[in-house]
Amino acid sequence: MAAKKNNAAKHISGIQEKKRVSPSIDELLLGIFNGDTASLARAITLVESTHQESIQTAQVILEKCLSQSTESIRIGITGVPGVGKSTFIESLGLLLTSQDKRVAVLAIDPTSTQTKGSILGDKTRMPELVKDPNAFIRPSPSGTSLGGVSRKTRESIILCEAAKYDVILIETVGVGQSETIVHSMVDFFLLLKLPGAGDELQGIKRGIIEMADAIVINKADGDNLKAARIAKMDFNAALHLYPPKESGWIPKVLSCSAIENKGIDEVWQLITAFHEQSIALGSFCTRRKQQNKYWLLQTVEDRLKRNFYENQTIKENLEKIITSVMENEISPFEAADQLLALQLTKPN
Amino acid sequence: MAAKKNNAAKHISGIQEKKRVSPSIDELLLGIFNGDTASLARAITLVESTHQESIQTAQVILEKCLSQSTESIRIGITGVPGVGKSTFIESLGLLLTSQDKRVAVLAIDPTSTQTKGSILGDKTRMPELVKDPNAFIRPSPSGTSLGGVSRKTRESIILCEAAKYDVILIETVGVGQSETIVHSMVDFFLLLKLPGAGDELQGIKRGIIEMADAIVINKADGDNLKAARIAKMDFNAALHLYPPKESGWIPKVLSCSAIENKGIDEVWQLITAFHEQSIALGSFCTRRKQQNKYWLLQTVEDRLKRNFYENQTIKENLEKIITSVMENEISPFEAADQLLALQLTKPN
Repeated sequence: MAAKKNNAAKHISGIQEKKRVSPSIDELLLGIFNGDTASLARAITLVESTHQESIQTAQVILEKCLSQSTESIRIGITGVPGVGKSTFIESLGLLLTSQDKRVAVLAIDPTSTQTKGSILGDKTRMPELVKDPNAFIRPSPSGTSLGGVSRKTRESIILCEAAKYDVILIETVGVGQSETIVHSMVDFFLLLKLPGAGDELQGIKRGIIEMADAIVINKADGDNLKAARIAKMDFNAALHLYPPKESGWIPKVLSCSAIENKGIDEVWQLITAFHEQSIALGSFCTRRKQQNKYWLLQTVEDRLKRNFYENQTIKENLEKIITSVMENEISPFEAADQLLALQLTKPN
Repeated sequence: MAAKKNNAAKHISGIQEKKRVSPSIDELLLGIFNGDTASLARAITLVESTHQESIQTAQVILEKCLSQSTESIRIGITGVPGVGKSTFIESLGLLLTSQDKRVAVLAIDPTSTQTKGSILGDKTRMPELVKDPNAFIRPSPSGTSLGGVSRKTRESIILCEAAKYDVILIETVGVGQSETIVHSMVDFFLLLKLPGAGDELQGIKRGIIEMADAIVINKADGDNLKAARIAKMDFNAALHLYPPKESGWIPKVLSCSAIENKGIDEVWQLITAFHEQSIALGSFCTRRKQQNKYWLLQTVEDRLKRNFYENQTIKENLEKIITSVMENEISPFEAADQLLALQLTKPN
């Protein structure tokens, strides 16, 4: 009763209002640990922020979240635009929530810097999942470099896990470097393909196929059924040409129709089988250890850059020196020397 | 006469021998400016070296070379494995040397870190060009990161230009990020394609096609002639769907048979037309200025990393801290903090 009165008083004085806008770190953590999506969303925003103060707050929160032990599985999903990633994720996500699992969906969007778009920006692409109380969908941050996005996605995974999400789905568009980044942060890497795209086995996609733990031919429905069957055989045959994975896992090829909700069960069974096998054999743990190492080095390199660009002396001189280089007044090497010397005069 | 005697004396005492092994900076520079390929090759090796002393020597040489004014054209050539890049470069290279041009061929090889192979490693892939006194072929460095390779390739271009090569051809395999890097250092970007590969217009290659100043359908010979004609039309139609380039240049589609030495003339005429137009309109200069800026920022970021990894205190503690992170004893963020603090205690 006394507490309630106190609360009312705070509200009148506006303190409660202010507090609602900026919850304390402890309040945020409590919210996250209780699975409160608003707290989780706010913590991810902090992680994505480039303000010095937010960065420090985010780090305190992350440290606390990292100390929580979790048993989640992180699944990377990639494929070219039009392959049906959103529909597939919606279908898989709904299957999982129907099994009382909590599902978080994150995205790494290499196209966002150029088009200012975002793969998950349009939440209506997953109309059912977005309404599901056991699902959390987070649009991709835009306007940052791929490296920056990757760091933030990794940190967002930790936050989602602390909020007790069991399955973390990380979506990316298959256009080059982003798959490597996603692969570096997931336990299972799933490549979605279209039926009748056997030609694509050649050349450019070899690296991506090598990373895949499963290839799933989506849109195996209607007129596509025959093509999907052929594609499945082709990929199966092709996968035999690749060297075996260190973990001993043999990548599998499946087909499904996300839109008709067919074959999604089998995909999840495959992932579960992988998960059990990799935990039993220890490869799950080995992969995460390697990822932690990679993550450390990425964090160091990100911070080295951030310390440089955030340095006051650098900020004051960078444009001038860039202009001199563009005008060929000094060489890029000499300019780099000048800039690095400037940073040393007044380190952050 | 006195000098000769002196020389002989040096030779006997072994000093002359030693000098031959490590020419002075001035000797190297003189060699480069005189177009001596041995000096050029040695300077590129210095640039590629990761030894502190070599890095400093390389930088002095680069500064001197950068101050030379040159009128070269830098051409990037990309395409999937099997498209015939080597044969095309040999054919184009021989055409240019027959016109008394000096041609240098460099490579950026994104696959080298994994396979330890090298696109130009096997010089016999260009059997005629390699024997041509007006051609210089440099295999790609292997075992380094893509970022590292790019920096070195850029520096190698400068060295080749100081050695009075008129045309610098930079080859890369079309597998993602490397095209962007090559595009960032060339005046003209040429995409080689196979006949009958119209499907590839979709999805993954869009970014690469957007960068191209010309698309050349290679292997337009024998049974492929019809397919090449169709591919040419398809690509021409497709290019109209892309937004116009800032420079005003409209990308062209050509076909050729490098192996039959047909159509190579036309490719060179197109490049010449582009070169003349872009110089007249100023876009040549604008593009190089932008590239200088990019180069500066790349150099700064490379050095930030190098200073970190070369720091003695870091070297002594990195492995230990990595192990702690892998074993989950500390978080990657905490470990990064520790490492960056260590670097500050004893900056290079």
